[in-house]
Amino acid sequence: MDKPVPRRVTIVDVARHAQVSTTAVSKVLRNAYGASPAMRSKVQQAIAELGYRPSAAARGLRGQTYTIGVMLPELRNLFFADILDGITAQLGDSDYQVLLAPGCNGEKAEARVIDAMMDRSMDGLVLIAPVSAKSRLNEVARSVPTVVVGRHGASPAYDTVTDDDIAGAALVVEHLAGLGHRRIAHIEHHETDRVRLAEMPNAQRARGYRDAMILHGLEAEIDIASTSYTQTGGYLGAQQLLARPVRPTAIFAGADVVALGALEAIAEAGLSVPGDISVAGYDNSALAAFGPISLTSVDQDGRQMGIDAARLLVERITDRERRTAQVKLSPTLVVRRTTAAADAED
Amino acid sequence: MDKPVPRRVTIVDVARHAQVSTTAVSKVLRNAYGASPAMRSKVQQAIAELGYRPSAAARGLRGQTYTIGVMLPELRNLFFADILDGITAQLGDSDYQVLLAPGCNGEKAEARVIDAMMDRSMDGLVLIAPVSAKSRLNEVARSVPTVVVGRHGASPAYDTVTDDDIAGAALVVEHLAGLGHRRIAHIEHHETDRVRLAEMPNAQRARGYRDAMILHGLEAEIDIASTSYTQTGGYLGAQQLLARPVRPTAIFAGADVVALGALEAIAEAGLSVPGDISVAGYDNSALAAFGPISLTSVDQDGRQMGIDAARLLVERITDRERRTAQVKLSPTLVVRRTTAAADAED
Repeated sequence: MDKPVPRRVTIVDVARHAQVSTTAVSKVLRNAYGASPAMRSKVQQAIAELGYRPSAAARGLRGQTYTIGVMLPELRNLFFADILDGITAQLGDSDYQVLLAPGCNGEKAEARVIDAMMDRSMDGLVLIAPVSAKSRLNEVARSVPTVVVGRHGASPAYDTVTDDDIAGAALVVEHLAGLGHRRIAHIEHHETDRVRLAEMPNAQRARGYRDAMILHGLEAEIDIASTSYTQTGGYLGAQQLLARPVRPTAIFAGADVVALGALEAIAEAGLSVPGDISVAGYDNSALAAFGPISLTSVDQDGRQMGIDAARLLVERITDRERRTAQVKLSPTLVVRRTTAAADAED
Repeated sequence: MDKPVPRRVTIVDVARHAQVSTTAVSKVLRNAYGASPAMRSKVQQAIAELGYRPSAAARGLRGQTYTIGVMLPELRNLFFADILDGITAQLGDSDYQVLLAPGCNGEKAEARVIDAMMDRSMDGLVLIAPVSAKSRLNEVARSVPTVVVGRHGASPAYDTVTDDDIAGAALVVEHLAGLGHRRIAHIEHHETDRVRLAEMPNAQRARGYRDAMILHGLEAEIDIASTSYTQTGGYLGAQQLLARPVRPTAIFAGADVVALGALEAIAEAGLSVPGDISVAGYDNSALAAFGPISLTSVDQDGRQMGIDAARLLVERITDRERRTAQVKLSPTLVVRRTTAAADAED
């Protein structure tokens, strides 16, 4: 940030100089409807005075496109909406437009979307919980400013914003152990890739669960159902756990959507929450806070994650040489009605 | 569709001719990493043979950008995710990339996002439940192929895909009246604009509710709380209705998120559903189907709406002169556990 770089004249400079909005400048540039003759003349004068080259910058051949691409694994996990809120709040009235590519589940879909965003000359990318190979992420980030959200692991090329997932899982185990639970089970997102086992939030939560169980002298009680971070994954995971010879008295689901599926399976089995079994989630999504569900959950402040991601991205667009940063946010536990003291007879 | 128009050679033609993917062609065009010398030579040969002009079409100065912009009022209404699924399923393996602009709540945000999408030379727009003035929508659609989803009203410039909201509301009233309910109240999204009162789905549902109450001889029982289609709107609307001298025995909430807020207010008031009061929603979102909630709701098949919208849009991109179409889909009622027979003493 300490060396001044020669700046290209942008559409923003033209707008400021002409004292009109960038939308107005853009309209004049593309001969759109709604640009009055007076507006045209003001903008054209500013372009001449500043030596702006509209056909290039306006089209993104060189210069900026003022577009930030956000890649999301899915739209149905409401936690991602919190991250989006933070991104758009931080970009606020700036000239950046956020465009989202949804449903990027898996490496192939991610590759396609990242290519599509680069083809469209986007100025920067926010990749939320990407599963692509680390080498690929580094390669992308060397081409276009990139911030990775929700995946751990420092990179020389991109910034990261994560929740401290190990600490979050420990908060849940500590809470349940404090309520007298010993048979605390976990539903994890199945993972085999070595790098992802180190970097993905799901893997970090499973690790945090194991570490905390050991810390509380409950190593022998460690019990994991390995499914997926979806409602169906939670449903199937809970069914597995309920079929154990001795069933758990508490389930820590790795995400709120997983907890919802677990609640469904528990209700179907004719058991009550928290009477027969306690359930905790992760994300503190709007669903967790919703009265009739009232799910104990870990709050990882998605909005703040989005704010930090957008801030880092704009900084990197301005200064590509800046050292990369890893922002890790501390989670908190929000205790609600799905967790209670273990039955004394258990 | 009956007059052949001269076709421009596109990146798709080049890809087919060279027998490679369009992503590969795009990589060669922008000199990206990952394009082997063999790939380059194949693509360059196809370009030469077909007379493709890459710098234009690839950059969207002329020709297509293969980008479809989708504008959404908000990310938290899970029904919109169903529409998105349908859009992406219909576009499938085509070369179109869907990019979403979220959080376009209100005319100002809509104007900004529509401008941003046009600035980026998107090939077509899907506008979901837009509130902008009709004249503005027509103007946009004359510039870029546009499909409006979830807002009624024929246009000479754009196609529409809607649910038959009047019929959907009638299904709910018929179901509740059939269960013996007479004091059936409705929570609507407040609306004053004359055109929107004719065209917006919320207004159509309120109209369908009124018409059906009259049809069932319940005109004197019509009772509407006018808030908003949000969880908070449902919560506040139900609070208003519960404070009536004689409270309703059934509430028809105009959307599932509204019903969720209503359920919360009813639980807080110490009343049970459906014991004390029946509740029905609209959208049949994943939330409604979720076991512990199990909300009676109107299914408007968002996925099919998305499929139809994408189909119409691609047709219009191919043939700008095609007559506009209005696709209206018939809803069905999904009865679950939040509605039951009215207490005989009521």
